[in-house]
Amino acid sequence: MKGYAMLKIGETGWIEKEKPACGPLDAIVKPLCIAPCTSDIHTVWSGAIGERHNMILGHEAVGIVDTVGELVKDFKPGDKVIVPAITPDWGTLYSQAGYPMHSGGMLSGWKFSNFKDGVFAEFFHVNEADANLALLPENVDPVAACMLPDMVVTGFHGAELCNIEFGDTVCVIGIGPVGLMSVAGANKRGASRLFAVGSRPNCVEAAKYYGATDIINYREGDIVKQILEKTDGRGVDRVIIAGGDNDTFDQAIRMLRPGGTIGNVNYLGEGDTIRIPRVEWGVGMGHKTITGGLTPGGRLKMEKMASLLATGKLDTSRLVTHVFDGFDKIEEALYLMKNKPADLIKPVVRI
Amino acid sequence: MKGYAMLKIGETGWIEKEKPACGPLDAIVKPLCIAPCTSDIHTVWSGAIGERHNMILGHEAVGIVDTVGELVKDFKPGDKVIVPAITPDWGTLYSQAGYPMHSGGMLSGWKFSNFKDGVFAEFFHVNEADANLALLPENVDPVAACMLPDMVVTGFHGAELCNIEFGDTVCVIGIGPVGLMSVAGANKRGASRLFAVGSRPNCVEAAKYYGATDIINYREGDIVKQILEKTDGRGVDRVIIAGGDNDTFDQAIRMLRPGGTIGNVNYLGEGDTIRIPRVEWGVGMGHKTITGGLTPGGRLKMEKMASLLATGKLDTSRLVTHVFDGFDKIEEALYLMKNKPADLIKPVVRI
Amino acid sequence: MKGYAMLKIGETGWIEKEKPACGPLDAIVKPLCIAPCTSDIHTVWSGAIGERHNMILGHEAVGIVDTVGELVKDFKPGDKVIVPAITPDWGTLYSQAGYPMHSGGMLSGWKFSNFKDGVFAEFFHVNEADANLALLPENVDPVAACMLPDMVVTGFHGAELCNIEFGDTVCVIGIGPVGLMSVAGANKRGASRLFAVGSRPNCVEAAKYYGATDIINYREGDIVKQILEKTDGRGVDRVIIAGGDNDTFDQAIRMLRPGGTIGNVNYLGEGDTIRIPRVEWGVGMGHKTITGGLTPGGRLKMEKMASLLATGKLDTSRLVTHVFDGFDKIEEALYLMKNKPADLIKPVVRI
Amino acid sequence: MKGYAMLKIGETGWIEKEKPACGPLDAIVKPLCIAPCTSDIHTVWSGAIGERHNMILGHEAVGIVDTVGELVKDFKPGDKVIVPAITPDWGTLYSQAGYPMHSGGMLSGWKFSNFKDGVFAEFFHVNEADANLALLPENVDPVAACMLPDMVVTGFHGAELCNIEFGDTVCVIGIGPVGLMSVAGANKRGASRLFAVGSRPNCVEAAKYYGATDIINYREGDIVKQILEKTDGRGVDRVIIAGGDNDTFDQAIRMLRPGGTIGNVNYLGEGDTIRIPRVEWGVGMGHKTITGGLTPGGRLKMEKMASLLATGKLDTSRLVTHVFDGFDKIEEALYLMKNKPADLIKPVVRI
Repeated sequence: MKGYAMLKIGETGWIEKEKPACGPLDAIVKPLCIAPCTSDIHTVWSGAIGERHNMILGHEAVGIVDTVGELVKDFKPGDKVIVPAITPDWGTLYSQAGYPMHSGGMLSGWKFSNFKDGVFAEFFHVNEADANLALLPENVDPVAACMLPDMVVTGFHGAELCNIEFGDTVCVIGIGPVGLMSVAGANKRGASRLFAVGSRPNCVEAAKYYGATDIINYREGDIVKQILEKTDGRGVDRVIIAGGDNDTFDQAIRMLRPGGTIGNVNYLGEGDTIRIPRVEWGVGMGHKTITGGLTPGGRLKMEKMASLLATGKLDTSRLVTHVFDGFDKIEEALYLMKNKPADLIKPVVRI
Repeated sequence: MKGYAMLKIGETGWIEKEKPACGPLDAIVKPLCIAPCTSDIHTVWSGAIGERHNMILGHEAVGIVDTVGELVKDFKPGDKVIVPAITPDWGTLYSQAGYPMHSGGMLSGWKFSNFKDGVFAEFFHVNEADANLALLPENVDPVAACMLPDMVVTGFHGAELCNIEFGDTVCVIGIGPVGLMSVAGANKRGASRLFAVGSRPNCVEAAKYYGATDIINYREGDIVKQILEKTDGRGVDRVIIAGGDNDTFDQAIRMLRPGGTIGNVNYLGEGDTIRIPRVEWGVGMGHKTITGGLTPGGRLKMEKMASLLATGKLDTSRLVTHVFDGFDKIEEALYLMKNKPADLIKPVVRI
Repeated sequence: MKGYAMLKIGETGWIEKEKPACGPLDAIVKPLCIAPCTSDIHTVWSGAIGERHNMILGHEAVGIVDTVGELVKDFKPGDKVIVPAITPDWGTLYSQAGYPMHSGGMLSGWKFSNFKDGVFAEFFHVNEADANLALLPENVDPVAACMLPDMVVTGFHGAELCNIEFGDTVCVIGIGPVGLMSVAGANKRGASRLFAVGSRPNCVEAAKYYGATDIINYREGDIVKQILEKTDGRGVDRVIIAGGDNDTFDQAIRMLRPGGTIGNVNYLGEGDTIRIPRVEWGVGMGHKTITGGLTPGGRLKMEKMASLLATGKLDTSRLVTHVFDGFDKIEEALYLMKNKPADLIKPVVRI
Repeated sequence: MKGYAMLKIGETGWIEKEKPACGPLDAIVKPLCIAPCTSDIHTVWSGAIGERHNMILGHEAVGIVDTVGELVKDFKPGDKVIVPAITPDWGTLYSQAGYPMHSGGMLSGWKFSNFKDGVFAEFFHVNEADANLALLPENVDPVAACMLPDMVVTGFHGAELCNIEFGDTVCVIGIGPVGLMSVAGANKRGASRLFAVGSRPNCVEAAKYYGATDIINYREGDIVKQILEKTDGRGVDRVIIAGGDNDTFDQAIRMLRPGGTIGNVNYLGEGDTIRIPRVEWGVGMGHKTITGGLTPGGRLKMEKMASLLATGKLDTSRLVTHVFDGFDKIEEALYLMKNKPADLIKPVVRI
């Protein structure tokens, strides 16, 4: 079969591979829609997860079931399914402890295009199909659903991590597609004042659409100073980090009120350390909690997110600025993601 | 001063009283807007809290500060303020334990028109003013704000009690003004499918406006059966009880999935016991949690709710179907609440 | 193979069955130690879960692995293992939602001696072996470990359910072996005053050993009245129900402070309803939370509990009042449990 | 009146001051027992909180009520009381949000010997007496109780912050008096394997007494390496930081499992930043939560802790290695704390 792969750090291309084998608990799926992710770009061009050879890329897909293993009960060939980017091993100790994304070791619930072939292929393999696939609801557009496997659950996880309460003041740093879903997630948890930090005009428009009340542009001055001014020096109750770099945590601590929480969903690709400012962190005693985590993944999360689309509670179509048709357009979509033109939020390829 | 009072069980009328005295931590407030509450009706005509003589009614108000005690720091005469229905004693052990509404004993954070004079008066007394008043934001209409002291925080507390997560299926039983705010609250926590149980046409319309996806009318059959059918037998993740009676809990348990929670905010006025069906409650082991509680009250809650109005995240004007002008219209508004015409959700009196 | 079975309601006996088959994820285990449970008694002689024919009894065992399926990675024949009473299907939606004990439907994580053959057999079958077995630590006595599969995790779950904090006043109702482990669990969560309700002298002694500070004997008067007197009318912060019947909830509500929680781990075998007293429940608004649940089960819980034995933090030997030697003694042990002589807490059969 | 004060950075001495005035909500208390704290040492000799002139030191005391304000209801002259180190303003927004220790601004629940005169005086002032004093139980020794205002609640707060579950593996870094109480707290929450990092022989003995199962001595090699070896590379579930410096967080992250939490209760007195190692923190997505906070303080906490002493659930006498008699011995006790002889854990002065 054909797949679009990372050949080595800095190089991609079409390759031929054997169609993957299907274990007793597994499924083989053909993609209907796929989306490239910024992390595919990091993986290939920054070598963020180290060297890989001929690894098929991609971890965001809606597909159609081709084959299922003999122990699979809930899915059959022909079913249209949403495939989460994170496909945990559900029996592991980490899953039992409530951290399926770390089943088998830190972050190792993330399998596609990390340590196994991804979804940019004619067929791809899904472990524990009954636990890691979700039926696509009939009234949901596969293009819109293709935002669920990673963009929505990752962005929303930022909101989950920082325990937003009704009427909280929240700041979301970074308004790419994940950050926009953090804005939507914070809004959907009951935030009132909702700062979104970013500058690209189409993302700013989308942030407002998803619930941002104030846009903070770093080109107009220090973002901490802007936010403290707009809150009369009080700062915010919660910060979701969905962009930036290691130094973003320093800013987040400075704008956060005691008792507040920082939830990070940004992949930190470089540098040795994240630095927390001692005094603003309350000399260790300010109850400013710092956490960050990979999204949970799995079937239940996909079903719950799909129900938000099916009931019209969430509209992800606003994220999809470019739609391509045809398997062979994967390369073009990936390069679009790499080159990030001004009008891009997220591309999807219909196959 | 003049006030509209419960003279005794079953009887109300205008009375004259001394203007209340202001302790060092307290404030005396003049009402700008008040709203009668169903619980005023229960108090007078059902004798729900026992006999009272010449107690001024009312616990929902927006007002203007008349006098403050010498230890009050944050408010001064002339300030426009939102006054919560629940005004806790913040230093008590229950408040320290996180239950300010029970400061001084179960439910005793509720003082107005319960064991002290209420807000249907030319002046009323607020204990611990710095902790129990909130400034009315400049861009917020006092009529809309008058829904915050009880309707919004009580309805939203239903959503808080039952720990809604993104994509949960939720049922709200009862869609009077509190139930409608439970619908809005559940929606604002991320519910996807949102059943609202009720039948009055204007409430049904409002429930849809606030996020209900399905209306369940008990006149069309058993509500449990209807919900199980609409969920393919799976039931709902959470139930908020904002209406009905003791038997509503039986229905709630039957429609609830294992691991789900029932959050009650309905005042249960009659009967000896609430009955939980043993088998459907998992013979005691189904992890179907039952809880219920008075809303927290206090300044912080009012400020957070007011920020939802100020940022346009919540529109309470939809609740207010009748607006009266003039202090002397309190009686008419109260009787409207008592008689509940078909087009009523909630009346407000502007003073 | 031979097994000791429920032949039908009211009747038990030795039967011959085929040795169970081992699926790819499963293990076949031979018992080293087993313990009969009060629920075996309910199952047979009260028909608590309905009719069963020739179902092998028992769900508390420490064993030795006989066979493993081809997908099992972490266990091999000859391993000594602790087998939880609850063996969830870990990939199901309920497990993903954090309720593995309800995987496949309410309570259906409980398989042994419920809807499949139990552990009172020469061999028994364990589903998802990697997720549901735990190695017996070398320094842990199998007899002591045999209290982990049900008694310890069930009793401790009572303490988990009611969110005990440092210095809380807690009441445990029922001090059979599960209740004693609730006493130990409450003590281990930081309870200060710890009421234990019971009367049998050996259980009273054990309750004191496990941390009870006050014994409440229902023969000396109403237990609610006794506890209110001993707490100057304030009542307790938490109640764990590990015995009694449906009416125990009425008592629990009456002795509980607002903001407190009742955690039930008692199997409620009879009656239509549990009755909650309306007024003492704060007319629905007292924040007295009522919950109850089957213990989670699975490997991680067994490993964590085993580590408490291995480090000497918990001594379960105090529970085991009678030890039998030989597979054929299962019947005698079961009848001992049925007849409950005064000196019995829990019997174990070494095989 | 006489008091022992910080005259300026680096200098202490006896001074004369006016007896403090008593506001309507306040109390004036005479000390019965006081204890100097390491933070007194930091305040004076490191200038940790900046310059202070003639500020009376001390924030750990058991006393006897001298005077109460006219609004105080629950205390009267002659009452023996425990006085928490942290005395919040309970009506503030931070207190309403659940963070009384930050009432009035980050850390400003800490008043004694921070921005008002402390307890090393003939009389000292307590704000909001009803909310910030607790009666000394009759059967509790004032010397033992003198460990409650700071040592116990601070050490236990470390355990509270990191959400210990039954059977968790926990590491406590630092075993001075606060760290020892973190060991006791972790043990009392149900930890199984409990690593204590320290080297002073008397502290090591006390750590074992309070529940440590393994002592890790940094003189015997890198503590992270030692702990990873002793846990077969898996690391620990929780880390409580009760000693060390900014670099201790780097070690804590490296020894922590994904999904684990670090709870800091150590005052970080120097340096610009705390550094979090990026890769070991899961490139931002490892769910390794970092938090830290000042202990809550207030009456309820003191009452709950006192109940642990009164019921014999906690023995703090083990912390008190040196007891002095006489008000004039305060200086000697403070210098003992400064010079930290090998046999010191904590001194108390009986007055």
